[in-house]
Amino acid sequence: MKHVIIVGGGFAGLNAAKILGNKTDIRVTLIDNHNHHLFQPLLYQVAMAALSPAEIAVPIRRILAGYRNITVLQDEVTGVDPLQRTVTAMECSLHYDYLLLACGVKHAYFGHEEWEEYAPGLKTIEQATEIRRRVLNVFEAAERTSDCGKQRKNLTFVIVGGGPTGVELAGAIGEISRYTLAKDFRNINPRQARIILIEAGPRILPSFSEKLADKATHDLTALGVQVRTASQVTNIDSEGVQIGDERLEASTVLWAAGVEASPIGRSMGVETDRMGRIVVEADLSIKNHPEIFVAGDLANFSHGRATPLPGLAPVALQQGRFIARNILRETAGKARGNFRYLDKGQLATIGRSNAIIELGSMRLNGFLAWLIWVFIHIYYLISFENKFFVTLHWVWSFFNFRRGARLIINKEWRFYRKNTDEKHKEG
Amino acid sequence: MKHVIIVGGGFAGLNAAKILGNKTDIRVTLIDNHNHHLFQPLLYQVAMAALSPAEIAVPIRRILAGYRNITVLQDEVTGVDPLQRTVTAMECSLHYDYLLLACGVKHAYFGHEEWEEYAPGLKTIEQATEIRRRVLNVFEAAERTSDCGKQRKNLTFVIVGGGPTGVELAGAIGEISRYTLAKDFRNINPRQARIILIEAGPRILPSFSEKLADKATHDLTALGVQVRTASQVTNIDSEGVQIGDERLEASTVLWAAGVEASPIGRSMGVETDRMGRIVVEADLSIKNHPEIFVAGDLANFSHGRATPLPGLAPVALQQGRFIARNILRETAGKARGNFRYLDKGQLATIGRSNAIIELGSMRLNGFLAWLIWVFIHIYYLISFENKFFVTLHWVWSFFNFRRGARLIINKEWRFYRKNTDEKHKEG
Repeated sequence: MKHVIIVGGGFAGLNAAKILGNKTDIRVTLIDNHNHHLFQPLLYQVAMAALSPAEIAVPIRRILAGYRNITVLQDEVTGVDPLQRTVTAMECSLHYDYLLLACGVKHAYFGHEEWEEYAPGLKTIEQATEIRRRVLNVFEAAERTSDCGKQRKNLTFVIVGGGPTGVELAGAIGEISRYTLAKDFRNINPRQARIILIEAGPRILPSFSEKLADKATHDLTALGVQVRTASQVTNIDSEGVQIGDERLEASTVLWAAGVEASPIGRSMGVETDRMGRIVVEADLSIKNHPEIFVAGDLANFSHGRATPLPGLAPVALQQGRFIARNILRETAGKARGNFRYLDKGQLATIGRSNAIIELGSMRLNGFLAWLIWVFIHIYYLISFENKFFVTLHWVWSFFNFRRGARLIINKEWRFYRKNTDEKHKEG
Repeated sequence: MKHVIIVGGGFAGLNAAKILGNKTDIRVTLIDNHNHHLFQPLLYQVAMAALSPAEIAVPIRRILAGYRNITVLQDEVTGVDPLQRTVTAMECSLHYDYLLLACGVKHAYFGHEEWEEYAPGLKTIEQATEIRRRVLNVFEAAERTSDCGKQRKNLTFVIVGGGPTGVELAGAIGEISRYTLAKDFRNINPRQARIILIEAGPRILPSFSEKLADKATHDLTALGVQVRTASQVTNIDSEGVQIGDERLEASTVLWAAGVEASPIGRSMGVETDRMGRIVVEADLSIKNHPEIFVAGDLANFSHGRATPLPGLAPVALQQGRFIARNILRETAGKARGNFRYLDKGQLATIGRSNAIIELGSMRLNGFLAWLIWVFIHIYYLISFENKFFVTLHWVWSFFNFRRGARLIINKEWRFYRKNTDEKHKEG
């Protein structure tokens, strides 16, 4: 019986596991440091209080409960020994016949890790709830004070990075301040919120065509978002951001400017690219290690392509399935195939009822694009229950502009604190 | 124009505010240290991963957005000066004509506040998510280890306090381990979980009749809960609890053993009872201060009764409405009335599809009681949106034993930690 270890329960790992589930002569161990699979494309909606965490995250062991040959472990992988074929985690060390590395990327501050405290990124549920807490808290703080300077700072939101995540965050804050919260305050007018999207490159959404990026800029502006391109953030602190000589006072700064791969590739001594992604062969294995595969955001796959495949859900999903099928072929004595990506295009939303879609030469924007966006995301949401509730929530929110999850949940749960506890600072 | 300050956005404060909303010659400021109204009777379902926080909590300012004469402030009240008629909070100081104190109770450790770290109580969303994190984490930890002693300790749950909250928590853990998680693990059998409900008094559910309490004990036992009465917990630490000479090793200890009132009463120098509740007049005002009212769990109202009114949602709701109507009467030049409680009885659930209800001499248990329980709770859930989704979730969970919110969400959101950060310990 072959033992397949899968590291990471994202789109790649989970879809590989499903194909290997209940197959004879295969047993699978899936290790993830979270207990849930996260539907990342909708994470910004949790950060923006439109959805609850449970609506886009499902316990991995629940999804895989029906496959008796799969064991799920919540643990943190600390190392891989390709020679001994072992994976070491905090609480176990396991031998594998096949290894699938699919532990993705995290956001990166390019050497300024101290910025994270002031400008959270958006990769995990924890970060999404942190961002939600900050965004909702500043409106409350602005309502409490009568100091105009403080109000202005509290109602200034800076989003660093003009990719799809930055655009979606900026659009959502625009929508919240112009519609959702418009009537809820007495001392402030949430519509006066300043939302500034900062991009270092010459234009936002560089992976999309220039025409769609222009449309996105136009639509963001209509939502009250200032789009500033060719602007390099040179410092971030608790009071705001610095762009060269210019100072922007802001209580909320969000980071959507870059990612780096899980450090596992570098720790294994295999070939990685500048972002730390593992360079893979045409069959998604590592050179000289045909028993180790890499999939999803962690993989740099550039065979027959000008640029490596982007970090998108369809790429991860197709790679995970492809690897699992190759393992099945090989254990059945057949030859492996090479991976080919079936392009599903790319999309991004801009506020409510507006999106942009690009697939080859097909370009679409506006309400129809948004309907397609909604349909695709519901279709891919992995469990029926979640699809069902997310659909309902969306329909509901669409008609009344409400956001169902506008809760400020503090990090501290205790009433009785030790005197030595440092009180958490809120942004 | 009279200024009414309401401290606390629970059942009492919120219902008072709604009656005063959009009335002429009245303006209202509602102050709460949370941004949300919490439907406390269902809080244990958040702790037990059946519901998401947003399903039982609604932003106070959203509920009151339609009343233009009401201002909502998220702030922490630090003091009341009855002579100057001012309320002081962290960021403001306000003068009132009428004051309604409705800031409730918190759980109490009777001089052992250091136990809180090891045995969280259940009064806030933060505590509910902390309990959920602990309960789900110990199953994961048990699955990871092959050490039988560790597994046993991880799968031992101690609930201290045999009132309705303790009974509901114990029943829910019984249900989770016997049904929800039964097929999800490979190395452990969640059904082997030991659930121990400890009550210092001679029997559980002292506020219910002995017959119903006996039925509850029987039904809890059927769910695998050991009910231990006349047992006094003498110590709690990170490894378990001490009951006199006996030691119980347990990774999860939950506290449902007692409450004490918000300290505001004692700080004002007015008459309070042993629990810190403010003793009120027949019209719910404070003696010699007819302009200050107290409602809900914070009030000790015992006029014409053998014991003070219990801390139940219907009591708070009726008191809040009564006080608001009295203020309206008085500002219209009419005389005040005295408060009379319309008894709505009391109820508690024991796992899925089982409950006990007691109203006067009417006693009910089993499935019918549970249906009534469901109906009442949906009816009272304050916003339509939440009612709707909670109903759907319940129907869904009932037919498939699933729990939609089985997420372990960590407290730490950062990837890049400072070296000086103390790592949070998980229970």
